[in-house]
Order: sequence, then structure tokens, then C-alpha cells
Amino acid sequence: MARGTPETVPDDGLTTKQRRNRPMVIVNQGEGKGKSTAAFGLALRGWNQGWSIGVFQFVKSAKWRIGEQTALEALGKLHEETGQGGAVEWHKMGSGWSWTRKTSEDDPARAARDGWEEVKRRLAEQTHGLYVLDEFTYPMEWGWVDVDEVVETLANRPGFQHVVITGRRCPEPVLELANLVTNMTKIKHPFDEGQKGQKGIEW
Amino acid sequence: MARGTPETVPDDGLTTKQRRNRPMVIVNQGEGKGKSTAAFGLALRGWNQGWSIGVFQFVKSAKWRIGEQTALEALGKLHEETGQGGAVEWHKMGSGWSWTRKTSEDDPARAARDGWEEVKRRLAEQTHGLYVLDEFTYPMEWGWVDVDEVVETLANRPGFQHVVITGRRCPEPVLELANLVTNMTKIKHPFDEGQKGQKGIEW
Repeated sequence: MARGTPETVPDDGLTTKQRRNRPMVIVNQGEGKGKSTAAFGLALRGWNQGWSIGVFQFVKSAKWRIGEQTALEALGKLHEETGQGGAVEWHKMGSGWSWTRKTSEDDPARAARDGWEEVKRRLAEQTHGLYVLDEFTYPMEWGWVDVDEVVETLANRPGFQHVVITGRRCPEPVLELANLVTNMTKIKHPFDEGQKGQKGIEW
Repeated sequence: MARGTPETVPDDGLTTKQRRNRPMVIVNQGEGKGKSTAAFGLALRGWNQGWSIGVFQFVKSAKWRIGEQTALEALGKLHEETGQGGAVEWHKMGSGWSWTRKTSEDDPARAARDGWEEVKRRLAEQTHGLYVLDEFTYPMEWGWVDVDEVVETLANRPGFQHVVITGRRCPEPVLELANLVTNMTKIKHPFDEGQKGQKGIEW
């Protein structure tokens, strides 16, 4: 998308600069591919801005390491060594959040709540410039994390923190709060033709 | 998406392993955000597999450097220095392709064809493991690059080379050839509310 000129200018008393610099809640949802991949692509942009990047994977790919994790952590290490870009932290629920000793095997609902509590703490402390809450729609959908609390927390988060949420179906109150919502729709997928996932494409 | 079990197994005489290891043509199209971002996220996965990554930007962001370019080039440099991941090349039409001295200012149709000719040469030479043809639907849509030639070239490309094409409307023959097609659909966009693009999000 081009830097772009807005088609309408709202009567909200804000200057263009104020409007430009608004922390965003972004949702990538739908049945198609690219929801998480686009979120990690956005993390590349954030890294380049020098933001601290916090990735929290609530379900998917949590037991194995996907390529994006290795690549983004390599960029985080580069930041530590050279100062280029921003810091990168990557946390996974499936293998147990790094800040606890518990694994999610026994109680994924509890693990999801633990993850959300940590995200809340970090939002309050303004730890990151960009939060990727990967597959976070599922714990909300399944009632493991309270949707109203998510909306309230995101709506009242301090400072300048962008939040990206991915997953198939995002609860309506979060969509209403979000500034940017994109549906990824499957038109054609190789699994339909009996193909299996392959390295570099699916992980 | 999980590593996943295919819902149907085709009667094509291929083993699962053969079906798993197929070079892909992937199209990210639609009016929504995330088409290019998801393609660059996929480049992270490819980099982690040690593939040579070739990005060819046919229109968008071609005059300025987007965050993904800096981040992916940092990963390419890391590969040169440490051997981790794969090589990264990033070429932009808007500022003039790096292999010519010409800029596209005068004749963008010619520049687009030059870009495609270079991609064809590299496909024949099996230069890259993953090609990102960013915004490549536009030169096809505008008749600058011949769609039938693109289909024939992609269909007959040798070896094991993945190709990702992004842009709003991909010509039907390319969609038919593609293994994976995703539509990115805009549900809500801050430009609609008069917001302008901002760093780290749009570039």
C-alpha cells in the first residue's frame, strides 16, 4: 500500500501528525494463509524502526521452532551486538512460557491465561513497541481469556504500543476496537489437492 | 496453519514425500493489507532453510527503502558473515534495477519487462530458492508483461524454485497455475478514518 492520502479527513480536532502517530490494534483473521506470516513481516518493519518486538504464540507451531522465530531472533541478536534495529523476544505457549516452569500440556486454558497476564503486565510497563499475539483469537473464542478484559486492556494501554492479533475468527468487540482488520481468504490451497505441508512454506 | 494432514489423497501416483516437496507458485492478492508483508514473512522461512532469496519489487515502495528490505538484507549479510540462513538479494524497479543503469522514470513498461526478463534468466539458471515478485500483478494487468509467457515460464521452470506473486488482481491464467492463492480482504482500514500511513506499519 502506498503511503497514501486519506480519502476523508475526520472532524476530530487532531492534526495530521497526531493522526499519523497513533498506536494501532491490527487483526489478521480468516481461513486463509498469511495471517501469522504477515504479522511477522510487520515485525520486520518494527525491528527496522528500532522497536522492541514481543512475539507471544498462543497455540500454533508452539512445539517446534518456525523459520520466522530463528530469523527474527537472529535480528534480535544483531541488535544486541551492533545496535541495529530493535530487540526481539519470542515466547511460546506450547513448550511452556519462558517465564514459567510449567508446560501447557496439562492445562492449556491456564497456560493461555498465564500468557495473557504476562502480556497485560508488559503493556502496563510499556515493554514493547510491537506485540504479536499469534493465534490469540482461539483462547478468546474458547473463553479461556475474557474478551471484555482484552478490549479494556487494549483500549487503555498507555504510551505508544502497537498490537497485532492473528487467528481465524476474532471476537466482534475486538474487531470494533481494532484500527485495521484484514481477512485472509483461501482461494486455493495445496492441501486440497492432497499435498502436505513443506519446509520453508508452512514452517 | 498446522503441518496438517491433507483431507484428500489424490490418485496421482506420487508418494507423500514427492507431494510434499513440490515447488510452489503462491499468489497473495486482494484489496487488503498483508499481501507483500506475508510474502516477506515467507522469505524469513526460506532464509531459515538456507535458500537464496530474490526479491523483485515491480512497483510499490520502489523509491524508498521499506523496513523489510533493511531487515532481510541484514539477514543476508549475516549469511555472508556466518553462514547462517540463506543469501538475500533485493531489487527495485522504481529506483532502477540494480543490473541496469536505466531508471524506470521514463518508461515503466520497459522497466517492468526488463525486470521480468531478469527473473526469467534467473529461473532458467536456478539462481534462487524463493522469488518474491512483489506487485507483479500490475505489469501483467497493464499488458506490460505477457501473461501467457509468465504462465509458460513458471510452468516449465526447472529444479526446485518457489515463486510468490503479490498485487491486487492476479490474471486468471496465473491463478490457475498457482498452487496456493490467498485473498487479502479489507474489513477495516485506518485510512478510511482519515488516518495517514505511519512508520513501522506501512513501511
